[in-house]
Amino acid sequence: MPYVMVQIPKTSAPTSPAPHSVPTSADVARLAGVSRATVSYVLNNTSAVRISEPTRRRVHQAAKELGYVPHAAARSLRAGHSRMVLMPAPDVPVGPLYSQFFNELQWALSRLDYTVVQYGSVGLQGDEAARAWAELRPVAVLVPGSGLGMEGVAVLKRSGARAVVTLGPDRVEGAHALIMDHHEVGRSAGAHLRARGYRSVGVVVPEDPGLEIFSKPRFEGVRQALGGTGASVTEVSLAYDEEAASQLAARWRSLGLDAVFAYNDEYAMLLMRALQDEGIGIPGDTAVIGADDLMLGRLLRPRLSTVHIELPSGRELAELVDRAVREPGAPPEAHEVLGATVVHRESS
Amino acid sequence: MPYVMVQIPKTSAPTSPAPHSVPTSADVARLAGVSRATVSYVLNNTSAVRISEPTRRRVHQAAKELGYVPHAAARSLRAGHSRMVLMPAPDVPVGPLYSQFFNELQWALSRLDYTVVQYGSVGLQGDEAARAWAELRPVAVLVPGSGLGMEGVAVLKRSGARAVVTLGPDRVEGAHALIMDHHEVGRSAGAHLRARGYRSVGVVVPEDPGLEIFSKPRFEGVRQALGGTGASVTEVSLAYDEEAASQLAARWRSLGLDAVFAYNDEYAMLLMRALQDEGIGIPGDTAVIGADDLMLGRLLRPRLSTVHIELPSGRELAELVDRAVREPGAPPEAHEVLGATVVHRESS
Repeated sequence: MPYVMVQIPKTSAPTSPAPHSVPTSADVARLAGVSRATVSYVLNNTSAVRISEPTRRRVHQAAKELGYVPHAAARSLRAGHSRMVLMPAPDVPVGPLYSQFFNELQWALSRLDYTVVQYGSVGLQGDEAARAWAELRPVAVLVPGSGLGMEGVAVLKRSGARAVVTLGPDRVEGAHALIMDHHEVGRSAGAHLRARGYRSVGVVVPEDPGLEIFSKPRFEGVRQALGGTGASVTEVSLAYDEEAASQLAARWRSLGLDAVFAYNDEYAMLLMRALQDEGIGIPGDTAVIGADDLMLGRLLRPRLSTVHIELPSGRELAELVDRAVREPGAPPEAHEVLGATVVHRESS
Repeated sequence: MPYVMVQIPKTSAPTSPAPHSVPTSADVARLAGVSRATVSYVLNNTSAVRISEPTRRRVHQAAKELGYVPHAAARSLRAGHSRMVLMPAPDVPVGPLYSQFFNELQWALSRLDYTVVQYGSVGLQGDEAARAWAELRPVAVLVPGSGLGMEGVAVLKRSGARAVVTLGPDRVEGAHALIMDHHEVGRSAGAHLRARGYRSVGVVVPEDPGLEIFSKPRFEGVRQALGGTGASVTEVSLAYDEEAASQLAARWRSLGLDAVFAYNDEYAMLLMRALQDEGIGIPGDTAVIGADDLMLGRLLRPRLSTVHIELPSGRELAELVDRAVREPGAPPEAHEVLGATVVHRESS
């Protein structure tokens, strides 16, 4: 790592104040000549209390002059809860689909006056992670993936979280659930290959253990779609590197597969490249279908067939969170939110 | 969006307690038969105070039984600062390179006992965003991209942040700077094309306005590398879709370019595909080089040349943050951290 020091400006004075110089709302009140309560009303935009425009201006001016910003934690201690929606960062690499979903969600929650923070939970698992999240006293927690248990939900609720929402394959007792069932992705791919007349179907399962949460139900889904048709379904494990792909391609003919669901578009691209280099025609010798509907799939030759996945819209999820926060006693809701449709192109 | 309600278990009792039932450290102290101070010492792992093993066990047992978790905000109010390192989420889509860097950083900071939260700052700009971050009273703030100004740094410091570190193209007064100068990416690509004898070089500039922070210096870097050699450098703007790429490919020959730096590997893939469909040979008619060294570049035919970018290691950055937090009065440091090296494959 090239870590080259380019400049240490010895002349610049330290600008960091000691902790005791951090301005407080009392300082603002003193400078503006008003009470602390008035400062709080003005800066928190409380509509319940009438405060004249000149007073408002004086408070804002004083706050600006002193560089005062309200303390979210102090405010949440007074209010009994925060406006923080905590979302643990997923511990598997995320694709553009998820990034877009997350940005949309964040935008929608910020319009409802929540602050979204994504918590890095590297190295923490399940209920232990829940304890760490609880320390920040979020008003709502959105947990992607699986791993959170009943105990974790209880810890979060006891710490004051009004809503716990899981986004994953299963329901957890006490939590709202947005169920993302990846069986449907495999079923769609399987039904497509069945309808196209393929009889000997391979399913790529990535060797990366973190992806099992997606790859297992996708594999099962293909089996379900082809069950009872006399077609065979073969699991084909593959690491995400060229060497592994070319080894697989070298023994491909011995597998006798006429079609393959390649887990996602990236694995499909890796496998297609290796199969083509081995002289295996696509879709003539083997049909290929991916998933995720990435841009790159359209750029391949032949153009890659894929399963387009729909995630919940950020706006709807934000509304669910808001409703749950306002009615913490309501029974948990469960929604199936993952949609899957095949985009048929040239490779299958 | 398929939003299908699958189950509302009417029978389950509301499990969310009212706010007043949230267990406090006083409850733990009462149940364990110790003082609140002892509870605090035990649960915060204070090594300065000797507490017997049986007492520790009793406190942990009581905390577990009540479902008590410490309140990070209350602790930070007492301590005068938190252990929270706040990192605003970048407002442009991030690639796998950044995701990996972020995970590494998060891991390294958590080993130094910091909590990393990523703050969604959708819709907030510059110093206004800094005020929102300051409300969470982080002990350190890592700001990717540009946009934070002197005023924002001052707001953060007055709110108690001991370290403000920018990760971007410029220095901001009062903040430590990890300077990521993307000129170097363009210079590397330009020097490579110059050395290979190309004289008429195009540079793809994405039309997406959010990417200017990267595309402008990359373009400038190519110009710098080719300056004084008599070679021409032509800016070629391109939207990230197939239609735009095929339109560009249709008029490609009229541009008279013998090489192109395609901004990054994804744009390179898009452009290469369109040029090949137009019958333009790569590298025979036009050489192509991308950037980011993505896996997909190796899978293209011809294999894509690229600029491999090195970001700072998470461990070193974590150490810088920790040092800055412990010595808030030390003068700001500046480090050049972006490394760029050409990976020459078949397309150039």
